[in-house]
Amino acid sequence: MNAPVKASDVPRGFSFSSLACGLKKSGLDLGLLVSETPAAAAAMFTSNRVQAAPVRVSQAHLRKSRGRMRAIVVNSGNANCCTGSDGRAASEATTEKVAEELARLHSSQILVCSTGVIGVPLRVEKILNAVPALVRAGSSKAEAFAKFARAIMTTDTRPKWAGASCRIGGKSVRILGCCKGAGMIQPNMATMLAFLATDAAISPALLARALRSAVAGTFNSITVDGDTSTNDTVAILANGASGARKISSEGAGWKAFQAALEKVCRALALKIVEDGEGAQRVIEIQVRGAPSDRAADQVARTIANSPLVKTALAGADPNWGRILAAAGRAGVAFDFERVDIKLAGILVCRRGGEYPFSERVAHKKMLAKYVPIVVDMRAGKGYARMWTCDFTGEYIHINASYRT
Amino acid sequence: MNAPVKASDVPRGFSFSSLACGLKKSGLDLGLLVSETPAAAAAMFTSNRVQAAPVRVSQAHLRKSRGRMRAIVVNSGNANCCTGSDGRAASEATTEKVAEELARLHSSQILVCSTGVIGVPLRVEKILNAVPALVRAGSSKAEAFAKFARAIMTTDTRPKWAGASCRIGGKSVRILGCCKGAGMIQPNMATMLAFLATDAAISPALLARALRSAVAGTFNSITVDGDTSTNDTVAILANGASGARKISSEGAGWKAFQAALEKVCRALALKIVEDGEGAQRVIEIQVRGAPSDRAADQVARTIANSPLVKTALAGADPNWGRILAAAGRAGVAFDFERVDIKLAGILVCRRGGEYPFSERVAHKKMLAKYVPIVVDMRAGKGYARMWTCDFTGEYIHINASYRT
Repeated sequence: MNAPVKASDVPRGFSFSSLACGLKKSGLDLGLLVSETPAAAAAMFTSNRVQAAPVRVSQAHLRKSRGRMRAIVVNSGNANCCTGSDGRAASEATTEKVAEELARLHSSQILVCSTGVIGVPLRVEKILNAVPALVRAGSSKAEAFAKFARAIMTTDTRPKWAGASCRIGGKSVRILGCCKGAGMIQPNMATMLAFLATDAAISPALLARALRSAVAGTFNSITVDGDTSTNDTVAILANGASGARKISSEGAGWKAFQAALEKVCRALALKIVEDGEGAQRVIEIQVRGAPSDRAADQVARTIANSPLVKTALAGADPNWGRILAAAGRAGVAFDFERVDIKLAGILVCRRGGEYPFSERVAHKKMLAKYVPIVVDMRAGKGYARMWTCDFTGEYIHINASYRT
Repeated sequence: MNAPVKASDVPRGFSFSSLACGLKKSGLDLGLLVSETPAAAAAMFTSNRVQAAPVRVSQAHLRKSRGRMRAIVVNSGNANCCTGSDGRAASEATTEKVAEELARLHSSQILVCSTGVIGVPLRVEKILNAVPALVRAGSSKAEAFAKFARAIMTTDTRPKWAGASCRIGGKSVRILGCCKGAGMIQPNMATMLAFLATDAAISPALLARALRSAVAGTFNSITVDGDTSTNDTVAILANGASGARKISSEGAGWKAFQAALEKVCRALALKIVEDGEGAQRVIEIQVRGAPSDRAADQVARTIANSPLVKTALAGADPNWGRILAAAGRAGVAFDFERVDIKLAGILVCRRGGEYPFSERVAHKKMLAKYVPIVVDMRAGKGYARMWTCDFTGEYIHINASYRT
C-alpha cells in the first residue's frame, strides 16, 4: 500500500486539482495537473491499432508544441474511444477550455487523457462546465496530489503513487508520479495512465530518452490479462523549478535522473500488478539463459499470460508443468530437456523433469504476496523479467459485469 | 450432447476396449482401439516445443511403419510429459506389451497417447499389468466404443464422439471418432486427443492429406484458453473393411471422404469448445474483409483468447469495445474506423463507432448457447473462423485446484 504523500515529495512549481463532474455514478472523475511555467514534456502511448481520441489529440499537441507543455487534464468513467469525430472534437474542446481558463495558453500546451468504458459517447459538456472550478481549485499541497491520483481510478481498488529524488549538481530534484490501471493491462509502449511530474531542468529530447528507457523494464514489463488498452499513456512534465543545473547531456546528472525516474516507474508498475483485477499476489517471472533477450521476453510474456499458469498461482499450486508447457508454445526454439525452473525459491524442475521437492512447503511459500519464478533455459545469455498477478474468480466477476 | 452410438455408426473391422488400471483415483483410465487388419494411418501432433514422451514415440512408430498401423493405446490420468528417459521407456514398453498381447505384431504398429498431469512419473507397471485384460476385452460393439470415449477423459464433463458416412463407388464408408479436451486448448496442428476410425480403403499419403485438410478449419480453429497442450494428437486408422473401392487419387471418392472426415472433425472440435472448462456458451468468431486470411486468423485468434472479451461473454454483455480493442492488438495493420461488428446477429459497431442498439435485446440474445460474432474489417478479402467459449469463475475454480 501507499504511504501518505508528504509535502517534501511534491516537486516544486506544480499544482493539482480534482472534482466529480458526473461522468462516474459517484466519486472524483476529473483531474488536472498544471506546471506553473512551461515544462519539458515527454509521453509514450499505446501500440494498439485502436487508439482513443485523447491519445491522438495528445500526440498532435506534443508535436505541435515541440515538447513544451503546461498541463494534463484527465477524466475517468469514459475512455472516449471508438467515438469518431465527435470524440476527437470532445478532446480538443477539453484542452481549449483548460487553456482558456488557465489564461494566455494555447490548447496545444495541454495533454488530455481519458479512461473508462470504450465506445460510449463522451458527455463532454459535463467536463467543460467543470473546468473553471477545476482550474480555480489548483493547489501544490500533497493532499491535492493524492486526490488527483484518486480521480483517475476506474476498477482500481486504491490510488497508486510513488516518488523519488536525486541530486544534480548539489541540488535536490524530485520526481512524483501516479498511475491507474487494474485490467486491460499488457502495456506495449506505455501503460494505462501514468503521470509524472519533476522539477528537474531537462530538454524534451533528453527527457523523452530517459522516459523510454525507464518504461521498457517497468510499465512495458507487466501484464494483468494480456489485453493492451486503447488509451495507454505515460506522460512526464519537467519544469526545472528545483533550481538544479539543467541536464544537457547523458552524463552523471542524466544518469542520476534516469535511475530515479526508473525507480518511480517500477514502483508504479508494480502497484498496477498488485492491484490487478482480483489479484491475490504478484508473480515475478525471470527468464535467463535464453537464445536472446527477445526470446527471453517472448517466453516470459507467454508464461505471464497463460491462464493455466495464472490459475495455478491463484491456488498456490506448484504446477511447474504448466510453466514449461507455456514456454513451449512461445514460438522460441529450445530443448526443453535442458530447462531448470525455480518456483518461490525452490528448484522444482531440473533438465525438463521433476526435481523432488515438498509440495507442502512449496504450496506454503506460494501463498506469499510476492512469488518469484526463475526459468533457466540454458540455451544462451538472453534475459527478461516480467511481472504479473494470479488469475482469480474475482477477475471474472469484475469483468463479466463491468458495464452493468 | 451426444446421441448414443448406434451399431450402424461403427466402422467395420475395429474393436474397442477400456478399463480402470488405477492411474486415476477412480474410473476408466486405459483404452485400446484395434484394427483387425493393418490399417493406413495418419496423425498430427502438437506444435508445442515441449512434447510428451508418447508424442515422440508415436511419431517414430508412424515413420518406422510407413503409415501402416494396427492399434492405438491411450491412458488418462498422467500426461507422461517432462518425464525424461523413463517416460520414453514407459511409452515404448506400453506399445511392446500391446504388440505382444495382440500376437505377431511389432511395437511400431502401435500408437500410444497419454493425457493428464504434466511432470509426474508414469506408473507404467499399472498399464503393463492391465494390457492382457484390455486386449481380451476387445469388442466391435457400439457400447465398447462409447466406453473407450469415456476412458480418455480428464476434466471433460462428458464423452465426445461424432460419426459420418459417405458413399464411395456405391459402397458405404463409415467414419467414427472421439476426442477429449476441455482445458489447455489452443491446438496448433492437432488437438488434445482425437481418435478416428474408418473402414475406407485409402493410402497413408492420401489419408494424411485428408486429415491435414480437415484439421485446419476444425481442431486448429478452436481455443478454450490459448494454452497449447504438450500431448495434442489426432490420429486416424483406415482399414478398408467397408469393401469400398480404394481411394487412390484426389478424385470424387477422396472428396466425399474428406468432406465426411471434416464433418466429423468439426463436430468433435465443437464438442471440445462446448465442454470447455467452465463454459456456458460457444462463441463463433468470423473475421471477414481482412488484408489476408492470415491476418484474419490473427485477429480472430486474438479476440478468441482475450480474457476481457471472454468474461464479457460470460456476462452476456454486448461490450463490443473489447472486441475491437483485442483486434487492435493482434499485430495486424488496419484502420479501425472502417470496422463493422455484429454480435449475436445485431449490428453494434459501424465504422469503428457505436451503432445504436437495444442493450436489453442484445443481452438476451447473448444468453444463448451459441453466439456468433462477425467482424468485418473492410480492408480486403481475408477470412477466418474460430470457435471459443466464455470464461467463467468455474474455469478458475477447476484450474486453481487441478492437482489437489
